[in-house]
Amino acid sequence: MHIKEFQEMMRRLYFHRDSERGVKGTYDWLVEELGELGEALEGNDKEATEKEFADVIAWLASLANITGIDLERAAINKYSGKCPKCHQSPCQCKF
Amino acid sequence: MHIKEFQEMMRRLYFHRDSERGVKGTYDWLVEELGELGEALEGNDKEATEKEFADVIAWLASLANITGIDLERAAINKYSGKCPKCHQSPCQCKF
Repeated sequence: MHIKEFQEMMRRLYFHRDSERGVKGTYDWLVEELGELGEALEGNDKEATEKEFADVIAWLASLANITGIDLERAAINKYSGKCPKCHQSPCQCKF
Repeated sequence: MHIKEFQEMMRRLYFHRDSERGVKGTYDWLVEELGELGEALEGNDKEATEKEFADVIAWLASLANITGIDLERAAINKYSGKCPKCHQSPCQCKF
């Protein structure tokens, strides 16, 4: 599934809720979901971890919807097959 | 671009770095990127906000790579056109 299709599915399912909640409320919920992913990563339940990954990308797409951002275009614009910092693939950045 | 293709691109670019950094270090970096997105959302620079959205999905894909999670499959398994809680589209959950 394209990133764009996933974002559109999130729009059909949740835009009415997301737009009522607003940007700040939706961002806060995304932060909470990322916390839940962190907790899942400390355990050994792969299925639970997958669901938390799903929730984080879902809330990220929801947040993109209510802020008017095309998540797929944003991702491709910055990451187009090479590292945006060193312009190499694989990344050769010196840290 | 498919979610899976984006995750594979992140693998080609960054897996060597991500696997050295480890799950905890990569998760912490993702948390930091989400904080930067939050700051961008408080401003009015759409281009900067797009770049922060790109970074969050990029680090989420990187984290999925080093934890052996297929982000696209995880997303579709949980969100398959209906709300996973109320099984309606659009979501009709009562909060």
